[in-house]
Amino acid sequence: MNDRTSTATDASEDLRAVAALLAELDICMFTSRAEDGSLHGRPMSNNGDVEYDGDSWFFAREGSRKVVEVDADPHVELGFIATERATWVNVEGEATVVRGDEQRKRDLWQDEFKRWFEDGPDDPEVVLIKVSARHIDAWSAEDERSFDVAR
Amino acid sequence: MNDRTSTATDASEDLRAVAALLAELDICMFTSRAEDGSLHGRPMSNNGDVEYDGDSWFFAREGSRKVVEVDADPHVELGFIATERATWVNVEGEATVVRGDEQRKRDLWQDEFKRWFEDGPDDPEVVLIKVSARHIDAWSAEDERSFDVAR
Repeated sequence: MNDRTSTATDASEDLRAVAALLAELDICMFTSRAEDGSLHGRPMSNNGDVEYDGDSWFFAREGSRKVVEVDADPHVELGFIATERATWVNVEGEATVVRGDEQRKRDLWQDEFKRWFEDGPDDPEVVLIKVSARHIDAWSAEDERSFDVAR
Repeated sequence: MNDRTSTATDASEDLRAVAALLAELDICMFTSRAEDGSLHGRPMSNNGDVEYDGDSWFFAREGSRKVVEVDADPHVELGFIATERATWVNVEGEATVVRGDEQRKRDLWQDEFKRWFEDGPDDPEVVLIKVSARHIDAWSAEDERSFDVAR
């Protein structure tokens, strides 16, 4: 009983520590797997995720390469790098394309996204990708952490 | 004929431009695929690669997770991030574990690696991972590039 309580507390403390790191890291490399087996990454905005709880949300365009890849194979990797602050975070996760959640699209929308999605969040071609972390490794000047994310 | 000459010239110019970016980006996220399909990244030193020619070399320990993963599936992704300079580079590549190339290990060795490999480059447990780029996407303040790497 003590063990389980302790584990639960630690996991939550681990996530809070990672959330503090991610609040300063807006851009990550989002890597997914193509049908031919190649791994393909692209920089994506973390939406200034200041309250990270193990789920990351990204905007994407219906039918784009990353949407096709995630639909076919949900395993993804998010890599956050801030070498100038000696901070690195890796998130092994499972991704889901979320279609039709108009309220969440509006809630997560930031004006700067017009650069990529000129018609705004209400465009039905704009979808969300949710990445649920399964395991996180994090290195910072203060400490190192490696933990599974409880669900 | 003109087309081929032009393509060859462009590819070489693309690689030189990426080499200039990578010379300032020592750490990348090295993502490989585990047997269960999950994608796993970790920060790795690019060895201050000032003359990037499409091949990246990394030190690793025999039997470590990344060596096992690369032996089983050579597809890897290298993600370089320097958000503070608006620079991002993604390398889709194929990785090979290079065992027994003692001369190259000594040539690539840097003293700081003693932190991870205390017995130095001559330790037979220390191997190299060569990543040959197949496709590169690069964004910088100056331009964007997306190109296949000719072999």
